[in-house]
Amino acid sequence: MREQSPWWVASDAGVHRHVHRAVHHLRSRCIWSEPQSQEGRRELYATRVTPDEFRLHGHALVDWIADYSESVEQRRVQSEVEPGDIRSLLPEHPPIAPESFSSVMDDVNRIIVPGLTQWQHPDFFAFFPSNNSYPSILGELLSAGLGVQGMSWATSPACTELETLMLDWMRELLDLPARFRSTSETGGGVIQGTASEATLVAILSARWRATNGGVNADGDTTRLVAYSTSQAHSSIEKGLRIAGVGTDRIRIVPHDDSFAMRPNELADMIAEDRADGLVPFFVCSTHGTTSSLAFDPTPELGDICAREKIWLHVDAAMSGIAALAPEFRWVNNGVDRADSYCTNPHKWMGVNFDCNLYWTADRTALLGALSILPEYLRSAAAEEGAVIDYRDWQIPLGRRFRSLKLWFAIRCDGVQTFQPMIRSHVALTQELAQLVRDDPRFDIVAPHPLNLLCIARTADDLEDANAATDALTERANTSGLALFTRTVLDDRSVLRVSIGARSTERRHVVAGWELLSLLAEESD
Amino acid sequence: MREQSPWWVASDAGVHRHVHRAVHHLRSRCIWSEPQSQEGRRELYATRVTPDEFRLHGHALVDWIADYSESVEQRRVQSEVEPGDIRSLLPEHPPIAPESFSSVMDDVNRIIVPGLTQWQHPDFFAFFPSNNSYPSILGELLSAGLGVQGMSWATSPACTELETLMLDWMRELLDLPARFRSTSETGGGVIQGTASEATLVAILSARWRATNGGVNADGDTTRLVAYSTSQAHSSIEKGLRIAGVGTDRIRIVPHDDSFAMRPNELADMIAEDRADGLVPFFVCSTHGTTSSLAFDPTPELGDICAREKIWLHVDAAMSGIAALAPEFRWVNNGVDRADSYCTNPHKWMGVNFDCNLYWTADRTALLGALSILPEYLRSAAAEEGAVIDYRDWQIPLGRRFRSLKLWFAIRCDGVQTFQPMIRSHVALTQELAQLVRDDPRFDIVAPHPLNLLCIARTADDLEDANAATDALTERANTSGLALFTRTVLDDRSVLRVSIGARSTERRHVVAGWELLSLLAEESD
Repeated sequence: MREQSPWWVASDAGVHRHVHRAVHHLRSRCIWSEPQSQEGRRELYATRVTPDEFRLHGHALVDWIADYSESVEQRRVQSEVEPGDIRSLLPEHPPIAPESFSSVMDDVNRIIVPGLTQWQHPDFFAFFPSNNSYPSILGELLSAGLGVQGMSWATSPACTELETLMLDWMRELLDLPARFRSTSETGGGVIQGTASEATLVAILSARWRATNGGVNADGDTTRLVAYSTSQAHSSIEKGLRIAGVGTDRIRIVPHDDSFAMRPNELADMIAEDRADGLVPFFVCSTHGTTSSLAFDPTPELGDICAREKIWLHVDAAMSGIAALAPEFRWVNNGVDRADSYCTNPHKWMGVNFDCNLYWTADRTALLGALSILPEYLRSAAAEEGAVIDYRDWQIPLGRRFRSLKLWFAIRCDGVQTFQPMIRSHVALTQELAQLVRDDPRFDIVAPHPLNLLCIARTADDLEDANAATDALTERANTSGLALFTRTVLDDRSVLRVSIGARSTERRHVVAGWELLSLLAEESD
Repeated sequence: MREQSPWWVASDAGVHRHVHRAVHHLRSRCIWSEPQSQEGRRELYATRVTPDEFRLHGHALVDWIADYSESVEQRRVQSEVEPGDIRSLLPEHPPIAPESFSSVMDDVNRIIVPGLTQWQHPDFFAFFPSNNSYPSILGELLSAGLGVQGMSWATSPACTELETLMLDWMRELLDLPARFRSTSETGGGVIQGTASEATLVAILSARWRATNGGVNADGDTTRLVAYSTSQAHSSIEKGLRIAGVGTDRIRIVPHDDSFAMRPNELADMIAEDRADGLVPFFVCSTHGTTSSLAFDPTPELGDICAREKIWLHVDAAMSGIAALAPEFRWVNNGVDRADSYCTNPHKWMGVNFDCNLYWTADRTALLGALSILPEYLRSAAAEEGAVIDYRDWQIPLGRRFRSLKLWFAIRCDGVQTFQPMIRSHVALTQELAQLVRDDPRFDIVAPHPLNLLCIARTADDLEDANAATDALTERANTSGLALFTRTVLDDRSVLRVSIGARSTERRHVVAGWELLSLLAEESD
């Protein structure tokens, strides 16, 4: 970052630009006298934290976060606490009188941080990454400081317009279909909290379209049928159940050896359901499943869904971000056929959670499903159709100014930071795969085109192999030196190595492998 | 706040306490050489924002937020921008090379802030307050800096345990029923993003209980019927529609002159629906409706719901926080009969959005409705039932460390700051009511026991009165001097005065009334 002049000098002018004389005019006419100084306010709320205290402790907290981030590597990845340990160290009853910020931070240092799983640790190979970054932390701070609501355009125009622009920027950076652009005929994008919420919004849109909107009145979902593989994320089943599509109507489409959906099996199931008088309405194609990062064949699924008029949702929560690097744009294969798509900058792009990007090519269905307009939310701008009211694009009403952290990340770290990180993670995964391949004690049990490697212990007997893999995962995690996630692929216990923390370097992956190798040796 | 010794000196010891020698041992055995210094990392991600840059700009941003907060009064409340104005000032395409933090903050000052509705403005009388505060801003900053995930206990134990404790603290501070305590037989609490999400979770729990869990399999919601008044929040209808209860099965129970539900009308409607073979399953009782802050008669509704075995949800999103002051504990009347209850510290307690508190007395129904357990989310602690996995208490899977901001607010500002603020807002509302009552040009059109006043212009003809009220709201808001919300109560156009911003003092309320008074005069 190259600085010209400090922005906080320039900001003084901005802060005072919009001073409105009439306010003072009115105030000077006040019929009641009232203390107007900060002293007066302090009298009323005598204990309130002052701006100066905020500055002092805010600066120190910023430094604390830099120290924490740069030294997190020296901590255990997984905490050693037992259930109830944290609570037992904290007072059972709330304080009535205010306490000092210092005493709170003492407790953060002494009680909270040792009780965390350190998701920003370079030896964190568990679940999926959930990265933050310095610019996006500041974006979140600014959002909290401004404290505005983006439920509709009128409640804070800049909040809505910056978000729309960020979705268009990201569409461009990820090379996603033009029909997702906010300026397209029928599409657009929005920030959701999580992929779970994006999935639910997709299901509700699909449900609305499949019933021609009738579901809004009769709530009848009993004939609707949805399709995904057993490898799809749990939020698919959760979202369907929430939307009134029970497990009796959720079809698990068989997968192939690479854990990807078999399109002809899907076609057969749809035909069967239609023959039974049911209404196939939703297919979820995952680009990068949670357990093994498998890719469902969206181009083929797209053909089927187009023919059958079924909503196709593509869940690329983790993998979609890879498209920031042109050589990985194959992760978008078939997305041009999708009715909706989502990916998470809060996973692999250093935008701190929560920041899911959801695009749809059919915003009519979206608005049909989610728009409710009471009197107190009406606005002229919205009624003229000149603006977007994002409250109608999501489950909740209220919304934070989340686009700030994405904007800060894109502008300050920039694509030139994200691309080498993604490339490095993928390359490290491939190097690790080579080591595992060369070791007869281990198998690689799924394709690994990106940054997730699924490995398992070998043994003549499946049960023995599974026991050895589970024991290895357990022991590695308990060491505190690294963290992995156990999963099951078909009947096989698996240790997942997810390489995606922002601070993970080659030496961490090597040490992680050495750890697994040592522990496997000891137990053999 | 009284400081003993600066906490950031003490923290150094904490940061390094958990250094694990074995990591270094393993690393020293690395088979590959790799740059281990910060220089090495910088080579790979040459453009990444450095810790020192983060410190520099973080400090400045903290100061910026203090300046903004203390000077927001000098700004227009409502922005003057037109649709598209903000976007037209920003580049249509994303930058590829990183930019300086200064250039971003220049744009914040120049483009973003003038395009906001200033929700933290002391002359903000619109919607409901959505307050932040210095301690809670720092809590949010810490949450972003730690970057951990609280989806289950095992993914960050302290994140779950602090949240549980905060819910128990708040239950105590608000004097809510003991059966909501986390240690109670069947109850417990959780932080949701918004009251909309809390409502949806309540509806899903009710749906599960009414169908004995059958809905999870068959998704059949077609016989379920829900009840609220026309004054209930839009999220009730939205949540019901999402859950597959269409408008054909949402009964609008008539309200009395104070906009509160008529219990005998509810009883009659339930009887009629039962006679038609339908299944009444959900009643929403609002404590403080959005339009007029009306209170439904929960004690009577509780009797009916208990008799009829219907889930009773109490939505006290705004008003519930008043119970921090003992003299306003009447807002809890009947809550001991509720199956679920929610209120928002992010409205009237200075905990920045998002922080909704949701309690239920029936966590079996909650878990029945929302629990999904894939292999990669299993943990020993959860399977032994020793811990709470909050992912099963909410719609999304992932979750931020939101309890930090509540903890910071309770400890640093403290109840001794919140109570006088709440009392002051209520007193100012009553003083304003007296002024309005004395002015023949205005009517007060709803009871105003707390901090919302609904007023309307008088006129012989309803249409004339409505036109005058709407014109007044429009002109007052366009002035930028204050912001109000228009609503409609039965057929009457209303100007709502919501007095709840943290910085609102008597002089602001007086000036707001002078503004309305002047504008009314001009138009007469």
